[in-house]
Formats: sequence, C-alpha cells, structure tokens
Amino acid sequence: MTDPFAFLVARGPIVDATTPKAWLQAMLDVEAALAAAQAAVDIIPLGAAESIAEACNAERFDVVGIFEDAALGGVPVIGIVERLRGAVDNDFAAHVHRGATSQDIMDTAAMVIVAGCAELAAGQLDTAAGLVDRLTDAHGATPMIGRTLGQFAVATTFGNVTRRWRAGLHDASEALRSSAAGLPVQLGGPVGDGASLGAGAQIAGGVAERLNLVSPGHSWHTVRGPIARVAGAWGLAATAVSAVATQIVSLAASDVGELHERAAGAGGSSSMAHKHNPIAAISARAAAMQVPGLVSTLLTAAGGHEFERAAGSWHAEWPALNAMLRATGSAIGWLETSLQRITVDPERMVANLAAAGAERTP
Amino acid sequence: MTDPFAFLVARGPIVDATTPKAWLQAMLDVEAALAAAQAAVDIIPLGAAESIAEACNAERFDVVGIFEDAALGGVPVIGIVERLRGAVDNDFAAHVHRGATSQDIMDTAAMVIVAGCAELAAGQLDTAAGLVDRLTDAHGATPMIGRTLGQFAVATTFGNVTRRWRAGLHDASEALRSSAAGLPVQLGGPVGDGASLGAGAQIAGGVAERLNLVSPGHSWHTVRGPIARVAGAWGLAATAVSAVATQIVSLAASDVGELHERAAGAGGSSSMAHKHNPIAAISARAAAMQVPGLVSTLLTAAGGHEFERAAGSWHAEWPALNAMLRATGSAIGWLETSLQRITVDPERMVANLAAAGAERTP
Amino acid sequence: MTDPFAFLVARGPIVDATTPKAWLQAMLDVEAALAAAQAAVDIIPLGAAESIAEACNAERFDVVGIFEDAALGGVPVIGIVERLRGAVDNDFAAHVHRGATSQDIMDTAAMVIVAGCAELAAGQLDTAAGLVDRLTDAHGATPMIGRTLGQFAVATTFGNVTRRWRAGLHDASEALRSSAAGLPVQLGGPVGDGASLGAGAQIAGGVAERLNLVSPGHSWHTVRGPIARVAGAWGLAATAVSAVATQIVSLAASDVGELHERAAGAGGSSSMAHKHNPIAAISARAAAMQVPGLVSTLLTAAGGHEFERAAGSWHAEWPALNAMLRATGSAIGWLETSLQRITVDPERMVANLAAAGAERTP
Amino acid sequence: MTDPFAFLVARGPIVDATTPKAWLQAMLDVEAALAAAQAAVDIIPLGAAESIAEACNAERFDVVGIFEDAALGGVPVIGIVERLRGAVDNDFAAHVHRGATSQDIMDTAAMVIVAGCAELAAGQLDTAAGLVDRLTDAHGATPMIGRTLGQFAVATTFGNVTRRWRAGLHDASEALRSSAAGLPVQLGGPVGDGASLGAGAQIAGGVAERLNLVSPGHSWHTVRGPIARVAGAWGLAATAVSAVATQIVSLAASDVGELHERAAGAGGSSSMAHKHNPIAAISARAAAMQVPGLVSTLLTAAGGHEFERAAGSWHAEWPALNAMLRATGSAIGWLETSLQRITVDPERMVANLAAAGAERTP
Repeated sequence: MTDPFAFLVARGPIVDATTPKAWLQAMLDVEAALAAAQAAVDIIPLGAAESIAEACNAERFDVVGIFEDAALGGVPVIGIVERLRGAVDNDFAAHVHRGATSQDIMDTAAMVIVAGCAELAAGQLDTAAGLVDRLTDAHGATPMIGRTLGQFAVATTFGNVTRRWRAGLHDASEALRSSAAGLPVQLGGPVGDGASLGAGAQIAGGVAERLNLVSPGHSWHTVRGPIARVAGAWGLAATAVSAVATQIVSLAASDVGELHERAAGAGGSSSMAHKHNPIAAISARAAAMQVPGLVSTLLTAAGGHEFERAAGSWHAEWPALNAMLRATGSAIGWLETSLQRITVDPERMVANLAAAGAERTP
Repeated sequence: MTDPFAFLVARGPIVDATTPKAWLQAMLDVEAALAAAQAAVDIIPLGAAESIAEACNAERFDVVGIFEDAALGGVPVIGIVERLRGAVDNDFAAHVHRGATSQDIMDTAAMVIVAGCAELAAGQLDTAAGLVDRLTDAHGATPMIGRTLGQFAVATTFGNVTRRWRAGLHDASEALRSSAAGLPVQLGGPVGDGASLGAGAQIAGGVAERLNLVSPGHSWHTVRGPIARVAGAWGLAATAVSAVATQIVSLAASDVGELHERAAGAGGSSSMAHKHNPIAAISARAAAMQVPGLVSTLLTAAGGHEFERAAGSWHAEWPALNAMLRATGSAIGWLETSLQRITVDPERMVANLAAAGAERTP
Repeated sequence: MTDPFAFLVARGPIVDATTPKAWLQAMLDVEAALAAAQAAVDIIPLGAAESIAEACNAERFDVVGIFEDAALGGVPVIGIVERLRGAVDNDFAAHVHRGATSQDIMDTAAMVIVAGCAELAAGQLDTAAGLVDRLTDAHGATPMIGRTLGQFAVATTFGNVTRRWRAGLHDASEALRSSAAGLPVQLGGPVGDGASLGAGAQIAGGVAERLNLVSPGHSWHTVRGPIARVAGAWGLAATAVSAVATQIVSLAASDVGELHERAAGAGGSSSMAHKHNPIAAISARAAAMQVPGLVSTLLTAAGGHEFERAAGSWHAEWPALNAMLRATGSAIGWLETSLQRITVDPERMVANLAAAGAERTP
Repeated sequence: MTDPFAFLVARGPIVDATTPKAWLQAMLDVEAALAAAQAAVDIIPLGAAESIAEACNAERFDVVGIFEDAALGGVPVIGIVERLRGAVDNDFAAHVHRGATSQDIMDTAAMVIVAGCAELAAGQLDTAAGLVDRLTDAHGATPMIGRTLGQFAVATTFGNVTRRWRAGLHDASEALRSSAAGLPVQLGGPVGDGASLGAGAQIAGGVAERLNLVSPGHSWHTVRGPIARVAGAWGLAATAVSAVATQIVSLAASDVGELHERAAGAGGSSSMAHKHNPIAAISARAAAMQVPGLVSTLLTAAGGHEFERAAGSWHAEWPALNAMLRATGSAIGWLETSLQRITVDPERMVANLAAAGAERTP
C-alpha cells in the first residue's frame, strides 16, 4: 500500500482493473492481437502469432520490473517488447511488435483499460440506480418541503428527489457505455502513417475486432479526441455521483434530518460518540471532487501534442487517466455504500413540511 | 468594449451568439414557446400565447437594464418576466411564465444558446477542415522527416500531418454537432416535479419541438448531465484546435521552417522588424488553453447541486459556460485564419529530410 | 456591455481597474517610466522623456482601435508604440520603447495592474472584516450548536463562527498585500538578456522605483514565478471569500434559520413571492468558484514557456489573469454586500441549540 | 506497487515522505506533542505524556489496517486514537487525544508532512540549480540565436538561458521554503473554539514549538488559507520545473540540436534504435503537468467548507495534497536527472546562429 488515501480514491473493483498488472495484460493483449491480425494477412507466420499469444500472459512477467524500467525509456512498452521477444521462440522474436510503435501499444491498451472500467463503472451505476428505485418504491409518495437556494419553496414528494437521482445515475451509466462503444485502436507505426505496417487498414481492423474496439481509419497519435471524449464521459459520471451524494449529505444534515446513513461501526467520531456522519456519501463527494481537475489535466495535455509524438503531453495523460478512472469508480462505490445504508425518516419529512408551511402563511 | 483581451478570446461570430441580447432573446424564445405549448393544450388562451409571442422580441427591451437588475434577484429571469408582463395585454399578464421557474427559463435558454453556438462552431471547424484539405491536395505527397519526442524519427509525408489535422477537426465538428443534437428542455416548475405545470410531459414536448430541443422526461435542475456533456464536447473541440495550432507553431519554427504563416500587416514584432510570427496559430493556442480550466469549473459546479436548486453551483455555471463557448469559438476562428495564411515550403521539407537522414546513417 | 454575466463576475471597482483603458494606461506608464529611467542615466535626452511622459495619457489614444489592432501582431504593445511615436515630438520618436520588447511592457504593465487590484481588493477584504467584527460585537456571545459534517456536534457561540471568518478574510487581505509587495519589473529586451538596454540593472531599478515595483535582477520572460505567485495569492483570497459565503448560505438555510440576508428588492423569486434568498452570498460563491479553474490555466500556461518567448503560453496568461482579478474582486464585493444585509436571529440559535441538545441526551 | 505510472509521478525521496507510514508517524507526532504540551501546563500527568510519547512510533502499529479502517469513519485518526489508547498504560488511555478532534490531528499532521516535503523538494531544487550553474560555468559565454515565438530573434548567449533557469529554480526553492516557514498548528477541538482544550493558546503554542510549526491564534478548520498557500507555492515550484524542462526539450529537438540528454540505457525507442530522447526532461514535464489540476482541486475544496467541519470538501483535500507533493517532487527529481545528463553542443549553437544570421540579413 503506497497511497494513504486509497480508502477514498482507489477503492473497489476499479482498482484491480487499473493496476500495473492490468495495464501489462492490456498491453500484452494488444501485442497478441497485432500478431494475430498480421498472421491473418500473412505478414507474419501463424506459428509466430500462436507463440506470441501464448507468451502474452502477465503472470509470466516481472510486473514490478517492467514498470520500474519504464523510467529508462519513458514508456513501459520498450521493456515489455524486449521481454516478450525473450519469451517467444527464438525464430519468432522478430515478429513481436512488428511495424508498431510504443504509442500504438500504450494508446490501444489505454482504450482496452477504459472499456473494461466503463463496463465496471456503468454496472455499479446501474446497481446504485436500483438502490434508488427501492427508495422510490418505499417512500416516493412521502410529502416533503422542496428547498431552492437553501430556502423552503413549495411542497413536493421524496419521489421527486429520488427520480432525479435515478435520472442522473442512468444518464451517467449511458454516458460511460456510449463513450466506451466506439473506442479506437491506435495503429500508426513510428510516425503515424502506417507505412511500417503493410496492409494497415486490414490489420487495424483485425486488431480492433480482437480487442472489441473500432478501427478509426487513421492514427490519432497527436489528435487526442478519444482521450478528450473519455475524459468528458467520466467527468459527467463523477458529476452525477457527486450531485446525488451532495443531496444525501444535505438531507441527512441534523437540521433537516430527513435521511440517515447508518451502519454498525461506520460514521463515528473521534470526539463525539453520539454522531452519525453520512460518511459514505461524504467520501463519494470527496472522491468525485478529484475528477474535474483530472479532466482539465487530460484536456490540457490532449491539446499540446506537437509533431508526430508529443514530448510530455502524451506521457502526462497516463497518470491523470488512471487517477480519473479510480476516483470516479471509487466515488460510485461509495455512493452505492451510502445508498445501501440510507434510512428515510418520513415523519421528519412531514414535520418539516408542516413547519415550512406555517412559516409561509402570510 | 470591456475586455482588453477580447481580441484573443471573444472574437468572431461566436460573440454575437453569446451577448446579453442573444441570451435575452433565447430566454424570450423559451417564454414564447412555453406559452404556445400551453395554449396548444388549452391551459392558457390562444390570444395570450399570441400576445406573448409578439412581445418576445429582444429589440423591445432594455437589455442593459435587465442584466443589471439581475444583481437583485441573482438571475435575469425575474426582471424579464416582470417586463414581459408589462409588455403584453393586461388580461394576459398572468399567463406569462405560467407554472415555470427561473431555472426552467435559464437552463432551456442555455441549451438554445449552446445549440446555436455548436452549429456555428461546427461550421467553422468544417471550413477549417476544408482549408486543411487544400494543403493536402497541394502538398500531401511532399516527403518530410517525422519527429517524435522532438527527435528525427523516420521519413513520412506532409499528407500524414494534414490528414491527422483533418481527422481531429472532423472529430471535433462531429462532437459538437452530436452533443447539440439531444439538448434537453428544462421544465420542472419551482421544485422540479412539474406539479405547477399541469400537463407537464405534453407541454415539455411542445416547448422542445418549438425550440429544436428534446424533452428528457424529467427535470434536471440538480442533475447536470447536460451541462457536463456540453462541457466535454467543447473541451474536445478546443483540444483538437489546440493540437493543430500547436503543430503549426512547431512546423513554422525558424529551426524547422517547413511552414510559414504570413499576412500583410500581421505577425510583426515591436522590436524585431524581420520576424514573421505565426500569430494566428499562437492566438488559437492561447484561446484554446482557456478551455480546460473552464471545463473543470463547469464540472465542479455541476457536481455541487443541493436540494431542489443549488445556491451558487448553478449560478457559477453561467459565466464559465459563456466563456467556454467564446474561447473555443475564438480558437477555431484563429485557426481558420492561420490555415488561410499558411504557405508550405516543400524545399525545406526535402532539405530537412536529407539532413535528418544524414544524421541517421550509422 | 458584452458579458451577460458581468453582474456576477465583473462587478464593482475591480472592473475599472482592469478595463482596456486601465491596461493601456498601465502600458503607457511603463513606457514613460522606461524613458524617464533612461533619461536619468543619459541614454536618451531629458526632453524626450518629458515629451514621452506627456504623451503617455490613455485619454489621448483610441483605446478600442489599439486593442482591435492587437489581433494583427498578437499583442497590444505594437500598436501602442506606433501611436506613441506619432504622439511625441518627431525628434523623440526613436527614443520611445528604446531597447525594450513587447513582453517587457506587457509583463510590467500586468504587474502594475495586479498591484492596483491587490490594493483595491485588500481594502474591500478589510471592509468585509470590519462588517464581520460588527456581527461579533453584537452577537459573538450568543450560544449556538456547532455542526460538523452536517451533524449537530457540541455547543459553541456565534463568535466562534465570526472570528473564523475574520481570520480568513484577514489572511486573504494579507496574502494579496504581501504578494503585491514584491512584484517585479520586466526588462530584458528582445531575448531577455538586457543587451539592448545598455545600463540594464540601473534602468530596471529606475523603472521599478517609478512604478512601485521591485527590480528582480534578471528578466523573467520565460520563468513565470511572478505569475504563479499572483495566481496563488488570488486563489487563496477567492477561497477565503467562498468559505465565508458558503457558511452564510448554510446558516441562512430555512432549516437552520440562524442568519438572514435581507434587502429591499433583492433576493426575490420569479415563482415564489415568500422567499428571501441570500443572493449576495450565493453570488459571492458563484464568482469565487470561477477562480480555481483560472488559477490552473495560469499555472499550466506558466509552465509551458519555451525558448526566449512562448508561442501561446504567454498570451494565454492575459485573459485568465484579468478574469481571475475580476472574479475574485467581484466575489469580495458580493460578500461585502451580503455582510451588510445580514441579520442574526439569536432566538433561533438558542432554539436550535436546545433542540440539538435534546436530541443528544441519551 | 499499485500505481503503474509511479515511475513518472511518484518517484524519489518525496515518496517515502508521503507514504501511509509517514502520515501515520506525523499523526502520532501530533498526538505526542499535544500530550507533552498538555503535561507542561499540568492538564495531564507527565507520566501520561511520557507513556504516549513512547507509544507514538509508527513501527509499533498496523499501518495497513489503520488506513483500511479509515473507510469506516472517513478519517484515519479514529483508528489511530483507538489503537494508541490500547498501546499506553491503562491509566493513561483517557489522556490520549484529550480535547482534540480528528481534524486537529489530520490538519496538523498535514502541515508536518508538507514542511518535510518542502525541505526535501527545496533541497532538490538547490541541487538542480547547482547543476545549472555548472552549465553556465562551462558554456555560459557561448553565443547562440535567441528565439521568440519560435522564430529566430537576435543573438544572445547560452548563459542568458541558464541564468533564467537558475532564477526560476531559486525562486521555486524560496517559495517552498517560505511557504513552509509559517505553517500553522491546528488545535480547535470538536467545533473549533478550543473550549475543550482548556488553556488553548498555551497548548497550541507548545504543540507548535514541538513540531516546528507556528501557532496561528485561532483554528482554521473551515478557513483554509494554509492549504491554499501550500497549493500556491507547490504550483509555483511545478511551474518553474516545467518551464526549464520545456526549454530543455526545445533545445534538444533534432532541428535545434544545441543540447542533448544522453545516458547509457535511457531514452531509447521501441521502434527506432537511433533515437536519443530527452526522456528525463520529458518526464519532468509530464509530472509537472499534473500539478495545476491538483492545485485547482485543492482551491475548490478549500472554498467549500460549511459549518464547523466540511462534509466532503475537507476529505477531498487529502488525496489531492499528497498527489501534488509527489508529482512536484517527482518532477524536480526528473529535472535533476535531466540536468545531470545534459551535454551542450557549442558548435551547433554557433552554426545555428550563423544560419539564423544569414536568414536575417536583408
């Protein structure tokens, strides 16, 4: 454990999907898909592709060493290709990574990672939406006072609140799934023109098919629409989670008291034993608040690619992307936990509504 | 003129589409569409809707006064509704803004503004892409040295560069158009449940149809997916523009000299008369660089909506949204100008390639 | 009026201090100070310096034309120097802007603008702190329930709240003043080495003295510590204002009701006549929320300066800097307004404390 | 290892200074200092303070367990206090954490961590500045062409470049040291008024003295000037590093070729064996680019603290703060590596200057 605040921003299933091992396996999957696609058009022997496919198993490699060595060349791919060449039959070593460049492997692997994370996170959002539906079913008709700009407004129902939550979570889940649907393979070779790859379009199509990505018809080494699109979708998701969590925290405030987030052992205080803090919703907010800054880092980096491969703007994307996936996924997980813990206090809703009404009568 | 740096970030057609008058007209259009949709289902008299429609003309109002008065209630809608009630037949005053809340009008007007700006900006991106095509047609086959991480890599052609540019600009244009295709009407009434609006869904549909928006089936006063989606799309567009501009600046550097951006009277220096600065590409970069921070402001605000209307997070969206539209639109305009001014130096490309090749030979 | 949301983010005395005219005057002041400092060491004739000083009056120039022309060279200085040369005695034209480069004038003028704005904003923060003191004097001893993580914690007094506010505002005022104390003159000539300026250090000292800046002993064309330092101080100030405004909004919530922000004609609603929204505090939050994104734009730009003058990262600083000054200054102004409008409800504080206490008793 | 991109953004001595164990030790140090300060004014027995001091050793605790348990209460302090009470003499357990609240411990520990990191990072910046001085000594007089906006400007020397670098690094080092000089202890008790702490000011002074912090005279639970000030200083430092790294990358570009960054085994390519990428400078840029977004997260969070302790805005500070320290520290380390590897090519400087001169002659 190296991050003291992993309990906030690197928690739940999203973590395993974004570890060094997960990234290594994604890069190996890209190398294997490339070899298979090249074998299919007779650019490399079928035996080479098979030998490469067999070798492309993260369990067989020194994960720590690979990512430490990345400091030498600035990218983990160099060490992976070297080790992979050592792991296949000698005759086939030259067929590993053929015609590709580091950025082809990294960018395509990033898309594989993002696609997996999107599926995971969308699933969690759906689960959270289901938990919201349970609240609607149980308490949707309960009358409550609506509040705008913090002030009592007019009467509404709790279902008005929960249906908005559901809409937001559903929108987020859709945004993640739809952004993940068209993620492109990257395959341009050293300078992005595909010249080194022979039958470029066919190979790109083959790689895309094997990895569940799409073939965009051109390389995107320095035009980073895919990164910006992913950033936008995850930014939206974090925003939706944060809004629901913010509303839970607001309704759970002692002065309002219409919701409680309670669980044995959780939400206590080091100085005040009587408190029940809505700590899961609070943590969801804290995790989600990391995301806008990370999105801005990704967009800034995406706009700064010069020549045929950027000297820094490309590398800057990786940690921000991984942190964004993790923080968003953690925020969703925290919200799920919060929704599981929520109890509604319909009596308090009715009482608050009555008190608000009294105040509003001229 | 109140912004000294409007020449960088508030320039071209996007400005007229985002002025106080444009926002006022958009809000009036929403009020008129609401009245028309309500008349269509007999909630208000047809005559009222006609009188309101006639009055909903920004030319007839004191634009400056309306936006100055917005400081009183925190939102321009209050002053608009008051004045609009004064502008219609006395009998119809009560039918103005019926069942709606300020946020319904502001949010829907924001979507109208965004849709108009997206059409404008996408058109400019298409124009820019066309200018890139002219470069491809004229010089696409010219051989040049590819550069990765700032270092000579292998030979490629100028068409490899310009085809990437085109792909990026096309992607941006698509992103803006597709984000603008499904922009939702906002219609929830004071606390978002539509209770004050009578036949809510039908009216929302009617308003949406009249304004070329969609009816989302729920209000989104506090779940801000639409704002986040718009932020993501414009962030992507700014990124695409910035990447192309960055590459123009790189290729126009004296040490490279493969492009020049030249125009009579432009790009000079206060101290060095011999210089030809690629000032339009530089300005495109500078304008686009404003956008990631604005996106992060929008996402942060979008995640902070509490209760039925946010006390601050909602209001914070407006200036950031308008500045984002303007900076992105200005960046596109600057890039268009740059592309018009570009001249290619194929001799230098060939010479640089030869020099690079020499260096690469063992 | 070109910005519809000026009522939120471009309001109060900070606006006049950041207009095109203010920037023009600051740039003219720099030119005049340069000429005077050069005359003092006999590099240019005293008569030239006097003629330049007389001409350096923004009233005499076409402000709009100058900033429109800035689109040609990418910087307003070129047009200013040209016009200034036309405005002085023919013999002295060559002594205008002698040895300087555009960035010398822009950067130094930016420091002049920032210094003026810091004085303004610090003064407003002091006024706001004074208004807080009045609250402390009147109600500091009133008991109230403290709330942590939104939950009732233990009893405290309203003075605990207001003394924290005061500390925050005082800290912000100090931060602005101290950041403004050491703002450096920029004087490096075309490539920053001062070679064109003759007796560089002496002249820099003379310019600094005349403009109330300091002479840093080197140019900072591409190392942007001064910009980053200013961004940090204004970020801190916006943060302090936002925290106080957030706490006002929280205490003014109907469910809490311990404060009210009331003023004739302000804080109303388009749909709910009974509401009293704390609109000044809300607007303070909205304005302050613009600042973190602008700070990140400034820091990003500041880190991207290449060679002897950046092609974009420099230009990107200007609109972000001006918007940051305005948004922060507007936020302070809004907070001042809020503090003037605040009324305290000590009965409600006591009643809430009693209710909280009851809840806490086992 | 859980972060695949630690080689970029979590590298060098800053990592050990920001681990879970480092944070745990810092929190234990705060508890020990509190007990000692309380014993000194006879609020707790001297024996209790001694027993607590002895127990406050991170080696004696289950670091992983403590930070995993933090998910329960949302803050690691609860688990630490519990375990610490178990680790001291039974009679003294009640004297542990006496009168303090979780935020007192976390905030003060954060200041301890920041102070240590600032010392570390400032030292590294000084080392980097020393490496720059060696370049100045060896090649400062070498003539070269200055470049502005990417264009050849006028002749200067390499010393003009390196002296700017030195100024930037020195400024950054000063900024870190000066921001670390006045870091405040946090000691307010449950709701920040110090009521639970007895002789508050004296104790705060005692804690501050023992931890090398200052006593601010008030708690800052919800006015976050100290966090904003730290964010500003580290933002400045990252900016300074990024600017130097950007200039190294620019001068090392093949088209310029005036610098090279070379080391055995480093800077290679997976597809182009002949390349020498300035990978350490590139990595410095990539690490530094993470920082502006993190600063904006910190400022946003800092401005959102409501009531007596924020429900989310406080928690959001921790991961962003730790990531900011690490990314900045890593960027400095990468720059140090780059400066160690740099070789200057004075012949190329002279040749480029000649070529530029030729071009400039009318």
